[in-house]
Amino acid sequence: MLSENQRIAAALRERYEAAGLLCLNLISSPGSGKTALLEKTLSALAQEHPPQRLRAAVVTGDLQTDNDARRLARYGYPVQQITTGGTCHLDGAMIERALAGWNLAEIDLLFIENVGNLVCPSSYDLGEHAKIVLLSVTEGDDKPLKYPSIFFKSSLFLMTKVDLLGLVPFDAGEAERNARRIHPGMEIVRCSATAETGLDLWLAWLKARLAAVREGAHAGAASS
Amino acid sequence: MLSENQRIAAALRERYEAAGLLCLNLISSPGSGKTALLEKTLSALAQEHPPQRLRAAVVTGDLQTDNDARRLARYGYPVQQITTGGTCHLDGAMIERALAGWNLAEIDLLFIENVGNLVCPSSYDLGEHAKIVLLSVTEGDDKPLKYPSIFFKSSLFLMTKVDLLGLVPFDAGEAERNARRIHPGMEIVRCSATAETGLDLWLAWLKARLAAVREGAHAGAASS
Repeated sequence: MLSENQRIAAALRERYEAAGLLCLNLISSPGSGKTALLEKTLSALAQEHPPQRLRAAVVTGDLQTDNDARRLARYGYPVQQITTGGTCHLDGAMIERALAGWNLAEIDLLFIENVGNLVCPSSYDLGEHAKIVLLSVTEGDDKPLKYPSIFFKSSLFLMTKVDLLGLVPFDAGEAERNARRIHPGMEIVRCSATAETGLDLWLAWLKARLAAVREGAHAGAASS
Repeated sequence: MLSENQRIAAALRERYEAAGLLCLNLISSPGSGKTALLEKTLSALAQEHPPQRLRAAVVTGDLQTDNDARRLARYGYPVQQITTGGTCHLDGAMIERALAGWNLAEIDLLFIENVGNLVCPSSYDLGEHAKIVLLSVTEGDDKPLKYPSIFFKSSLFLMTKVDLLGLVPFDAGEAERNARRIHPGMEIVRCSATAETGLDLWLAWLKARLAAVREGAHAGAASS
């Protein structure tokens, strides 16, 4: 299963590269705030003026319901819901099917919101440029040590719901130290969709990463 | 894999029945408060006077670390940590190994704290009398609809961290209605380990369930 997935992921990666888009795979426990963060992200992107305005698209996965697709569709960007039935993660074939109706050349940022699960999705490559792990401050500062695989594999740790710091037993510094014990030098952004804090840093991270992908593509084209 | 697990789970179930103990399988997302609830539970049980004092034991699962076993060992009851490596759930063989050193006849309440994951553990029978799903109010009131399998299979829904109601966007009544859409008549207890609310209802549930198991065992013995 995994090697078949790797073949599909490699094909997806080639398509993303050819389209010059940045693909991000967002992974967290249920209820860490993936959808809320994407809502604020799409809202912020939609307010920028052309030609700077980036074209986003979202593929969102859940075991059941299309609640998230309906929440995300309000911002004017294409959204596709994957309902996995009982499957605990998204895989490459699901992404291939979800992208079937889209012209990737018209997308700058492709967000994949994985099934809420801090364990299994980390094993399935979706061809993404980066995995992003979200951990909310209500979940406990020890979680990077208890779920090391996803922290090791993710390029960015979004510490969410920081508006609740002080109301819950969570030491933000300790959570960051724990994340960097697993993944030295890991990038971390503290944010809150509710309080709209840290979103500027997150948007700056997105744009820098997109620029790096496009520079890499140009360098590759120039050298070939 | 699953049918081999069912064979082991059936053997575990027989051992629990023979010992007259109540086995409960606690399942939730990471950070919903399984360990905090168990800490308060063990603390309350330890304060009761013999001969009413129930003898508890805990098997606790995580991908990595023995943090939870160390937290739970402070109450004087036997605790066994299972470290799964990367496996996203506990299975019957892991429980068999964890129980190897214990005399089940000396245990009244066997708590199994599963790996933090709202999806995969629901598929693995550990021979338990009941699954219990925990969902914290920070995770969102739509989660029963998005993760229906565990709500369908669980006998009790513990709504945790209710001290945070009002600080997070969570409609407790809606969460309960959603749970009962999936599982009509589902028992629900609202609780907070931090505020120590609802623990009396949870302890009463435990004792009633243990009494039912023992009455069932006696009825079975009388009729055989």
